[in-house]
Amino acid sequence: MTIALIIPDRKLDDLQQRLSAALPGVTIEVWPELNDPAAVTFAVVWKHPAGCLQQLPNLKALQSYGAGVDSILTDPELPVVPLARVVDPALTESMLRYLAGIESYYRLRLDQFHRQQQQAQWKPKSPRQLRKLCVLGLGELGAAAAQFFQMQGYQVTGWARRPQQLSGVTCYAGVDGLAAALNDADLVICLLPLTSATEDLLNQQLFALMKPGVILVNVARGALLVEADLLAALDSGQVQAACLDVFRQEPLAATHPFWSHPSILVTPHISAVTRVDTVVAQIAENYRRSEAGLALLNQIDRQQGY
Amino acid sequence: MTIALIIPDRKLDDLQQRLSAALPGVTIEVWPELNDPAAVTFAVVWKHPAGCLQQLPNLKALQSYGAGVDSILTDPELPVVPLARVVDPALTESMLRYLAGIESYYRLRLDQFHRQQQQAQWKPKSPRQLRKLCVLGLGELGAAAAQFFQMQGYQVTGWARRPQQLSGVTCYAGVDGLAAALNDADLVICLLPLTSATEDLLNQQLFALMKPGVILVNVARGALLVEADLLAALDSGQVQAACLDVFRQEPLAATHPFWSHPSILVTPHISAVTRVDTVVAQIAENYRRSEAGLALLNQIDRQQGY
Repeated sequence: MTIALIIPDRKLDDLQQRLSAALPGVTIEVWPELNDPAAVTFAVVWKHPAGCLQQLPNLKALQSYGAGVDSILTDPELPVVPLARVVDPALTESMLRYLAGIESYYRLRLDQFHRQQQQAQWKPKSPRQLRKLCVLGLGELGAAAAQFFQMQGYQVTGWARRPQQLSGVTCYAGVDGLAAALNDADLVICLLPLTSATEDLLNQQLFALMKPGVILVNVARGALLVEADLLAALDSGQVQAACLDVFRQEPLAATHPFWSHPSILVTPHISAVTRVDTVVAQIAENYRRSEAGLALLNQIDRQQGY
Repeated sequence: MTIALIIPDRKLDDLQQRLSAALPGVTIEVWPELNDPAAVTFAVVWKHPAGCLQQLPNLKALQSYGAGVDSILTDPELPVVPLARVVDPALTESMLRYLAGIESYYRLRLDQFHRQQQQAQWKPKSPRQLRKLCVLGLGELGAAAAQFFQMQGYQVTGWARRPQQLSGVTCYAGVDGLAAALNDADLVICLLPLTSATEDLLNQQLFALMKPGVILVNVARGALLVEADLLAALDSGQVQAACLDVFRQEPLAATHPFWSHPSILVTPHISAVTRVDTVVAQIAENYRRSEAGLALLNQIDRQQGY
């Protein structure tokens, strides 16, 4: 009974030790150094190389190391076993703290004062009056964000593919509901899952449905956004400013125009990073369930992609 | 019965109209265009030219237009009449929102990510672990800030000239209490009044009492800070970063080194600006009290300077 950790480019000593402590008697190995691939029944994966799971003939279940599974589902040779994702309260808290900080950043006009500082310009301005906020995507993180900002006094609309109900939040669904959800929002926060239905959704047509001068925050996935359309919308003023934490290619290439655009705040995918100390219990529990033949916690629907 | 508004360099139409509405029958005039200086019994002042109040022989009381009175007390020819300041809940709320935003800014490392963005550098880092916070000055705003951050989960110390008690906040007093108050704080917020006893208090000796790598926020008055000492402390790393909203000279001169220092965030005195719509009632009430011979609300002690 071996668990394989297939998470390239990351130090995994800590995760390995903690899982060993949580699951006495279970071998925890770090891919690609696997002593006996046939012994692996469970794998924790994040951005694994496509096809590498074919080396594990006795795999019973897969656990994403993050809240998303899009980087896993792109593998055309993905074994047909149950796949679970992390639903981590600490991850939600980290996301809400990020969004609260970004909301304050724009409300206080720190973006404008930064630019003024670079030009030694003293131009006091009262805070931006941000009152209406739209959250695209009402999964774990999107629903939490919508309710958080509603409690902060915002009028919040939410949008998802299928109808949702959230206390205090006006929810819209389906492509037909997009215009109503976006209408008049001062701030749009994207927390959509990346699927074939949502890829490139943040494009010129969508920006045209937003209030001129809207502020856009993308903390979901880079491939939801058509980059050239955002640059055009910023330059026309249709979008006033954008905070981007996720990108089509990460790390963002040094020559990418986003780095130097005066209306874009780039953060290096830090809005909600999985914390080892909070997810170990969830991984251990899903391992036990898999071995016992039970359904996994937070199992995803592979057809829907989330 | 005339009220004079002596607030140079600001549009006062709105304040004038609202005071007229709140005090029917009272003439509200904007200095220096006064029809009958001898009719003025009450003046609302902010950064008035020294000596100009000598033109008002029948002045009974003075009302500062802000929370501070230091710009008024520096007038060597200040008439000996009661002086009140604004204590405005909206002003406190504005300050707390500013401080909460600045705290998030540093916790999320937006200062570092800004610098990295300028250099097209992708270096993800988890949030700063800020746990201990010291508030210098425990007046209306300082006490509110200390309690706000205590409720946010911070261990908060406070310091004031005289002993104070604040629920959940460890308070120190007097020069002897400074070291204990500052000891080990990750974030130091200055909300001291500017008096002869506090001028230049934020100096090299004080920085030496702080934890190496401390983050400093000055939202009180520029003259509390010895500017050269801050620059030296930032360059040595004793102070990691500084957010400054107030300056010895405002507007900050275009050639001032603060503008271009990579570890300083300059905001143009916007942390807590008096809002016309919330202070009108307070000014009107003090005018009525002055005419009736009653003590003013929020009257300051001119010996202490606050």
